[in-house]
Amino acid sequence: MLKYRDVAKKIQQAIYQQNLPKDTQLPNIEGLINQYQVSRTTIIKALNCLERHGVIYQVQGSGIFVRQLQKRGYLNFLESHGFSVDLNNSPNSSQVFNVDIVQPSSQVKQNLQCEDGEEIYFIKRLRKFEDKIYALERSYYRRKMVGYLNKEIAEHSIFSYIKDILKINIGFSDKYFKAIKLDEQTANYLGLSAGDPALCVEEIFYTSAGEPFDFSTIIYHYDNAKFYVQSNSK
Amino acid sequence: MLKYRDVAKKIQQAIYQQNLPKDTQLPNIEGLINQYQVSRTTIIKALNCLERHGVIYQVQGSGIFVRQLQKRGYLNFLESHGFSVDLNNSPNSSQVFNVDIVQPSSQVKQNLQCEDGEEIYFIKRLRKFEDKIYALERSYYRRKMVGYLNKEIAEHSIFSYIKDILKINIGFSDKYFKAIKLDEQTANYLGLSAGDPALCVEEIFYTSAGEPFDFSTIIYHYDNAKFYVQSNSK
Repeated sequence: MLKYRDVAKKIQQAIYQQNLPKDTQLPNIEGLINQYQVSRTTIIKALNCLERHGVIYQVQGSGIFVRQLQKRGYLNFLESHGFSVDLNNSPNSSQVFNVDIVQPSSQVKQNLQCEDGEEIYFIKRLRKFEDKIYALERSYYRRKMVGYLNKEIAEHSIFSYIKDILKINIGFSDKYFKAIKLDEQTANYLGLSAGDPALCVEEIFYTSAGEPFDFSTIIYHYDNAKFYVQSNSK
Repeated sequence: MLKYRDVAKKIQQAIYQQNLPKDTQLPNIEGLINQYQVSRTTIIKALNCLERHGVIYQVQGSGIFVRQLQKRGYLNFLESHGFSVDLNNSPNSSQVFNVDIVQPSSQVKQNLQCEDGEEIYFIKRLRKFEDKIYALERSYYRRKMVGYLNKEIAEHSIFSYIKDILKINIGFSDKYFKAIKLDEQTANYLGLSAGDPALCVEEIFYTSAGEPFDFSTIIYHYDNAKFYVQSNSK
């Protein structure tokens, strides 16, 4: 892990563990240099990283303050690679319906920039958290990049497998979303009725080299899934 | 404007004007230094800024590439201070129903961290774009910070007024959102039916000193408003 990321993580953990409320002032840069025994550059990089992630805010000439949200039960919309990441160590699970190798539809082909004849893993999962259904997820992975998947992997974290086992560097993602009316089939999966509202998110994930490897459509249960996003004018 | 922001803007404009497709390689750092006649540090800062905003991606040892999305009609969820910003120079307008000075409800008071007795501007607006209704917005501004508002200002951009006239530095915001079923009153404003789906966004805006000044609840028309978000593993 990069030095500044390690320090950023430690500062964030300290904020969590002490349960510091919003607007609590943290030590200044000199204080943090002393505390973590790293260079000024590392501290500044760590603080900028924490600021981008909405953990702190910095007021010029005034100090460094806790920004961390205290509202519970909201998922971080920007950091959701499935729920495993968002909900930390809370009990979440996936019910996997299928892991199939298929030919992509034209929509999937376009979103994943597939060549002709490419094969795709198609996975349908119901995502649960504390026995509540959160979402129905239909995911498409390019087999030329994610060479092997099975039900066991899909029941846990596909993204951990991709990062830790396949050593693929995940770079960035594009999400497109809107509210929709549920069709009957999806409503049945979610335990809702046709016509009920849902948040529909289409997301394309790219490697750090800019190559798309996953296209997913996720339909969230309107009563069980709520989100937050922190933005920054910087 | 900071030097690196100015350069970032110019690079972004060049990408737009030439309509460069995704994955187009840009000149390397040396090339950009030559082209824009600024320091290496400025170019690196400008590139990091463009990367954070999802305009480019950088592949170590390989180059700088265009990331810009080409899907039309989606609003940037992270940069939405009302529509004026998102939809650039497209014809958008607001129908203002009221600009009232009120006592905050307990929910508003809590979200804006109001002191006892503080007065609030309450504004209800219907947001339109190309004559389509996008959203019903209920906004609450702290009068001790936004001392004056009227219908004329609310028909244009309240945020431009706050930034350019009142010289308030807008720092960051927290958004909370989920899909909901419309109630009859809101459905009537949007030209929809009770029970139809909608995206409901609650957003709190802070100054760069961390003080909340605006709490808004925005209910988006499910057929007319769709969004994108770009995220980045960095």
